[in-house]
Amino acid sequence: MPSFKPRDPDYERRVRDSFARQRVMNTIGAALTRVEPDVVEITLPFRADLTQQHGYLHAGIVGTIADSAGGYAGFTLMPPGSTVLSVEYRVHMLAPARGETFVARGSVVRSGRTLTVCELAVEAVTGGERTTCSIGTQTLICLPDAEDRPAG
Amino acid sequence: MPSFKPRDPDYERRVRDSFARQRVMNTIGAALTRVEPDVVEITLPFRADLTQQHGYLHAGIVGTIADSAGGYAGFTLMPPGSTVLSVEYRVHMLAPARGETFVARGSVVRSGRTLTVCELAVEAVTGGERTTCSIGTQTLICLPDAEDRPAG
Amino acid sequence: MPSFKPRDPDYERRVRDSFARQRVMNTIGAALTRVEPDVVEITLPFRADLTQQHGYLHAGIVGTIADSAGGYAGFTLMPPGSTVLSVEYRVHMLAPARGETFVARGSVVRSGRTLTVCELAVEAVTGGERTTCSIGTQTLICLPDAEDRPAG
Amino acid sequence: MPSFKPRDPDYERRVRDSFARQRVMNTIGAALTRVEPDVVEITLPFRADLTQQHGYLHAGIVGTIADSAGGYAGFTLMPPGSTVLSVEYRVHMLAPARGETFVARGSVVRSGRTLTVCELAVEAVTGGERTTCSIGTQTLICLPDAEDRPAG
Repeated sequence: MPSFKPRDPDYERRVRDSFARQRVMNTIGAALTRVEPDVVEITLPFRADLTQQHGYLHAGIVGTIADSAGGYAGFTLMPPGSTVLSVEYRVHMLAPARGETFVARGSVVRSGRTLTVCELAVEAVTGGERTTCSIGTQTLICLPDAEDRPAG
Repeated sequence: MPSFKPRDPDYERRVRDSFARQRVMNTIGAALTRVEPDVVEITLPFRADLTQQHGYLHAGIVGTIADSAGGYAGFTLMPPGSTVLSVEYRVHMLAPARGETFVARGSVVRSGRTLTVCELAVEAVTGGERTTCSIGTQTLICLPDAEDRPAG
Repeated sequence: MPSFKPRDPDYERRVRDSFARQRVMNTIGAALTRVEPDVVEITLPFRADLTQQHGYLHAGIVGTIADSAGGYAGFTLMPPGSTVLSVEYRVHMLAPARGETFVARGSVVRSGRTLTVCELAVEAVTGGERTTCSIGTQTLICLPDAEDRPAG
Repeated sequence: MPSFKPRDPDYERRVRDSFARQRVMNTIGAALTRVEPDVVEITLPFRADLTQQHGYLHAGIVGTIADSAGGYAGFTLMPPGSTVLSVEYRVHMLAPARGETFVARGSVVRSGRTLTVCELAVEAVTGGERTTCSIGTQTLICLPDAEDRPAG
């Protein structure tokens, strides 16, 4: 995969500020644990109140951290003064989302002026063992001259 | 689209029981508001603690209710004693997820012995106005002779 | 689904001209059989030299006519002097692609200045009977001030 | 990514026989150029009669070779006497499909008894230069005790 250069030297602060405004991340207990040009990771400790009917992490919550990881991976490369939106994402569930901690990683595979494409992966971590429980892909759009903050 | 016949006359109770075990639904405040053979709807009132950086419902939460609506739409048609898992889902965000209430609808388009394919749609409702903010598709697998309840 | 107004009164000629430049359509024997604002259909008679290992139409050829039908559905709504490109598409195979004729339909569900989202469906027709053998969704990008003709 | 063991020592012959029955591969001029447990590559020389309106390889033909590469990657791991079908696939177009030759690679990321998930990539090769013009993902189903040959 290619490597990319951020157009904004201050990309990390910009990503961290935006992540802090994603209130759902605080609600589910997710943290931003890696911010590099073109790769972002989000870590979510397992919580029983986020599960589906078998007691595993719900596929939608797996998708939630994957979508944000990809969105912020793309955002690391976007210019100052822009904002990022998900156009679409898709995830495959490869194995039951069973683990103590989940690490979602978004990696940029195409960074264009308007559109960015990311690969997504979520690993379930139990003790030292890591299993990829989900992979996905995502399309992002960069809105230049838009405020990355709550409307109103 | 075709219409389908449930193989389990008790499908509604089975769906409602399983939904009640999806603890994340209670956590985010989602309710099962329609259960018919091949169509299920889930309603989620807006909550500020489920938002992304602009104050709209996070695309992952949109995907969460869409994924469950599709999963249970498929489950209405599955035989007694089976369980359902998402193989993959994908959602497009058509408009900002801004509204007082969100209604996710899953509709079965193919119901096979092993695999089910659903269409997903999420509407944002404000006053009497409804806007489709997301569409998607999903693949489900039916596991026969599996317990649809927490492992362990 | 919403209905859309073409921004170019001459949209049909523009679509037909572009379709005629898609040389692969002639190669596989596909024809443009419906061009309306936001809906386009492409018809492909079955040919044994387009099949997969069981003698059905190859899923990739199903995707080829679906992708073009969606692309041109989106193109009916784009302004004069623009061109359209597929960002991504995905198709589900619901049933074996077995039939005398295949009709791919692309329908616009979101038409934005930059991005368009389409629903795709392919029907297999045998005698008077029609079966939906594939559904899909697609993201398109409109490139304004670009030549919709071969480069070089 | 994990590595997988073929359950059929004769997997390569089985894949090559099936590929030879995919008549569309011969029609477009595609060849099977790599067959290993869990990875298959298909090579397609550029042909002007397979192009879209700008003279690049049509996204549907890109998808066609990607879908077959993934299908046969999955098939390398399936048991004797089975057949493989695509449930769904999706491809992103990352760059114009412009090149002298295109190499589609399918790689298995999950190999289950019933379902297989593959990653897809298509590279455009010009002189010694390779550009990834497309990535995708795919779901396959294994039909045991089915004939992998034309019906009838």
